[in-house]
Amino acid sequence: MFARTDDAFYDDVLLVDERESFLGLITTQTLFKVQNALLRANINDLVDKEQEIRSKNEQMETDLRMAMELQQALMSFNYSRFCDDKRELQFSHRYRPASMVGGDFFFISRISDSCTGVFICDVMGHGVRSGLITSMLRALIEALGPRAAEPDFLLAELNHELASILRQIDTTLYVTAVYCTIDAATGQLRVANAGHPSPLHLVSESGRCVRCAPQITKGALSSAFYPRHAIKPRQ
Amino acid sequence: MFARTDDAFYDDVLLVDERESFLGLITTQTLFKVQNALLRANINDLVDKEQEIRSKNEQMETDLRMAMELQQALMSFNYSRFCDDKRELQFSHRYRPASMVGGDFFFISRISDSCTGVFICDVMGHGVRSGLITSMLRALIEALGPRAAEPDFLLAELNHELASILRQIDTTLYVTAVYCTIDAATGQLRVANAGHPSPLHLVSESGRCVRCAPQITKGALSSAFYPRHAIKPRQ
Repeated sequence: MFARTDDAFYDDVLLVDERESFLGLITTQTLFKVQNALLRANINDLVDKEQEIRSKNEQMETDLRMAMELQQALMSFNYSRFCDDKRELQFSHRYRPASMVGGDFFFISRISDSCTGVFICDVMGHGVRSGLITSMLRALIEALGPRAAEPDFLLAELNHELASILRQIDTTLYVTAVYCTIDAATGQLRVANAGHPSPLHLVSESGRCVRCAPQITKGALSSAFYPRHAIKPRQ
Repeated sequence: MFARTDDAFYDDVLLVDERESFLGLITTQTLFKVQNALLRANINDLVDKEQEIRSKNEQMETDLRMAMELQQALMSFNYSRFCDDKRELQFSHRYRPASMVGGDFFFISRISDSCTGVFICDVMGHGVRSGLITSMLRALIEALGPRAAEPDFLLAELNHELASILRQIDTTLYVTAVYCTIDAATGQLRVANAGHPSPLHLVSESGRCVRCAPQITKGALSSAFYPRHAIKPRQ
């Protein structure tokens, strides 16, 4: 190949030997035909490649979307079962995760007819890896059954089980979590916090916001220290 | 725009009015310049678009790879801890999953100094969604602790907890699983099977392969029926 300046780019090319004797002529037309064919081949290649990547991409997105639907179902789709209009406790949530499947997770569980547990956690990092940890936590809460009525105990147990799993695979991973139980019969709200931002309690009588528990900055479920903060939401 | 036949494609274009009076001439050179510019713009667009999709793709792949590393660590990286060359029980595995993160899962757990549990499962479907279920199962096994020594009990418990979670979110999902405990002290191998292909026992004395338990075709962990099959591997 040979390079030409922009000005001369559209001129015919004269081929000469070292003594400047005429060897031949490549017309612009011919050059263009060749170049055109190259460009078109280039475009076809790119379109094919794009198609291939796009289809792989769509597969992964479909995969992640199905996983997202499961993860979000694990969080929210169950509380309408035990919190209808006629109950004293009602819940609503707003969830804006960083990625389709990730470490932002919450779970509202029925403990008894009057008592409900609210678990909120954030697994360090994001993406599917963190999502796998959230589904472990969800399963561990399920396995605790009625023992989930005790906030301190629940966080300590989750910490114990998760730490045991992670220790086996030499993995360090931080999780912050807060867990509240709300009992409509006794009017008691109990909160245990493991490094998570404190939940806010909007007091209806005064319209003021109260932090439910002091925030512990120390790394989360890796710590075994869960201060309890008990307040009575309605006196 | 106007279309031309392939033959005439590289000719100059003569512009005439309805009475065939000469209006102007577009030389092939000019046409080529325009076409060339269009093709190059087209290529640049495609390259940009490809770059964008490729980068999104790489992000998802990195995400999945990190999740895959965690999932595979949950399976295999721990058994070397309690099964070294000096022990009676030794393990090795070959794992070829259908996708990076998916529903193919196994777990080898230490129950006591002499006893080990081997859990193998296949969650219906594949991809991240199924992967989330495997990490739940892994956590549930962890939570069972020493109670995992009883194969029937382990599968029944996993079934109970998983079914309870899935019922809350109106999701049907099938899992097949087989769980064996191998006790080097007593020489006893116990197997419970929930719809999974039977494990094969290669008997060292005879060189024959024996199926450890009959395969139950009925859908898996959704069923509460787990036949037990107990054989003594070394008499």
